[in-house]
Amino acid sequence: MTTLYYLGPEGTFTHQAALTAAHRLNAMLPDDVMQLQPCDEVTQIADHVEHGDGWGVIAWENNVEGYVVPNLDLLIDAKNMAGFARIGIDIAFDAFVTEDTWLQARRQEVDVVELCHDIRAHSHGLAQCRQFIARHGLHAVPASSNAAACRDLAFGSVALGPSLCGELYGLHRIGTAVQDYREGCTEFLVTAPRGEVQRILNGLSHDKQRQFESIVTFIPLVTGPGVLANLLDVLRDAGLNMTSFISRPIKGHQGTYSFIATLDAAPWQANFHAALDEILEHGDWVRTLAVYPHVDRPTPPVAQWMLPQGGARYDATQNTNAAQELLW
Amino acid sequence: MTTLYYLGPEGTFTHQAALTAAHRLNAMLPDDVMQLQPCDEVTQIADHVEHGDGWGVIAWENNVEGYVVPNLDLLIDAKNMAGFARIGIDIAFDAFVTEDTWLQARRQEVDVVELCHDIRAHSHGLAQCRQFIARHGLHAVPASSNAAACRDLAFGSVALGPSLCGELYGLHRIGTAVQDYREGCTEFLVTAPRGEVQRILNGLSHDKQRQFESIVTFIPLVTGPGVLANLLDVLRDAGLNMTSFISRPIKGHQGTYSFIATLDAAPWQANFHAALDEILEHGDWVRTLAVYPHVDRPTPPVAQWMLPQGGARYDATQNTNAAQELLW
Repeated sequence: MTTLYYLGPEGTFTHQAALTAAHRLNAMLPDDVMQLQPCDEVTQIADHVEHGDGWGVIAWENNVEGYVVPNLDLLIDAKNMAGFARIGIDIAFDAFVTEDTWLQARRQEVDVVELCHDIRAHSHGLAQCRQFIARHGLHAVPASSNAAACRDLAFGSVALGPSLCGELYGLHRIGTAVQDYREGCTEFLVTAPRGEVQRILNGLSHDKQRQFESIVTFIPLVTGPGVLANLLDVLRDAGLNMTSFISRPIKGHQGTYSFIATLDAAPWQANFHAALDEILEHGDWVRTLAVYPHVDRPTPPVAQWMLPQGGARYDATQNTNAAQELLW
Repeated sequence: MTTLYYLGPEGTFTHQAALTAAHRLNAMLPDDVMQLQPCDEVTQIADHVEHGDGWGVIAWENNVEGYVVPNLDLLIDAKNMAGFARIGIDIAFDAFVTEDTWLQARRQEVDVVELCHDIRAHSHGLAQCRQFIARHGLHAVPASSNAAACRDLAFGSVALGPSLCGELYGLHRIGTAVQDYREGCTEFLVTAPRGEVQRILNGLSHDKQRQFESIVTFIPLVTGPGVLANLLDVLRDAGLNMTSFISRPIKGHQGTYSFIATLDAAPWQANFHAALDEILEHGDWVRTLAVYPHVDRPTPPVAQWMLPQGGARYDATQNTNAAQELLW
């Protein structure tokens, strides 16, 4: 039995990610049983994992908001925690009322929303469901979390939350996926102590068909022009494909940077291993934050219709005001 | 007279940034007078700026949370908006009560917090002042914004908000800079229509002593290993120093990426101009998002005490479990 810690309270999107993770891990590691446990703070999750008390589920990246930077910093700083699985969750809000509200509307033979005057969710949830709120003329009231809004729902109010809140809190669902933006997705990492991550990956890597991705942090110990280009030359010359790259100031030390790269390879593969060796020989600081089975993603050619309007392009410069686009 | 649009309501950190921006712009452009105007949505600010109705102040990067990615996407997509000034604001919360609460405490000769049972702010504000809330045993109640919590403050409640809320809403200040984390800072960009940005920068660049920074977006039109390294080789070979770099999926098109670089140079400088020319000749899409006078930042050497604990380093590998740190 392994405890899987997640950011509570029950009914959050992280709870939904933890449920999905438990299901996926049961398939990946059939001898283990997952027991879910909410935490009040992400730092508590890291403490449990680093002390070998269990595994953790932490939010990593959202396709609208970008990286969850505090969790990125947490994983860079963690002495004994790394990721070994990546879980994507669609961010969709359902709308709920209490059974009392629902039954009253049926007795009066009116639309249930006519009995409701306000709608409750976390500020982010309210901001993501503006059209639904406006269409029904409801007064938006912020709650400490979507789960709390659902748990504490009263007669005559609507709550917004992840689908699992309906079953969790015995509510009546009056709308499904009512958010404005249909393609919101958050990705989570499942983390464990480093020794356990090594053991799990060792088991998975026996399947030679399986492909892996890795997230690695580099801190060059000298700074100045070309530091980043020199680092990336090593990765390019090893033939490694990169799917994400960011620089991040080292926490509390303005002017010094770490680089976080996501690569289509595992660090034990010969070309990646040799590239890491070369980077270490430069004297740079390196830590692998996560290695997990490859997640399929589309790789379409970059056609012109995907580009933002305007901008400068060589074959289009006759139609473009390059000076205005480039400010040169 | 120029209207400066910011994300309202009055009393937000963006309002504080807009006040600072107005002050700085008056020094930079003495012939102009700024008039501040709040907007409900950042997209409204962009609409005003793109239609030539005025300038905008948008949040760009926070040193804890990272880039404000929706605003980054907005600027990449904007046909006729670019940044020309960068403003940093310390994120500090003051604690307020109403004058009634304060006077009642004086009459009863008790500590004013003893008369208070709850504390109100945006969820983010409450999360950033946990120690203050716990020390005073107050019940945390989320509000739609810090400014709204201050504006609507009632007898027996405490509100948290930016310093300017005290004067704005006639409140009594009972605590200054009560947030847990002392070094929080958010940077903002001041934006204008591209033609006006060109005119302003043209005026500023006559001072040959003045240094500039630029934020540029690149979208390579082919993908695969080495695309990013090839791009950065051009910038390195031009001797350009980069202070920030991120990749960002193109909105709505998973698997295609834009790269956003912040460089210590202006695009009209010969080496930068030549590098942009070379990148355009590769067929890549390029847009300069902002050019602004250089903001001083420390550039300390990266000493070992700045590194996270653990990790792998070549001269330290005897003490390090490289296999565990690199997962190879």
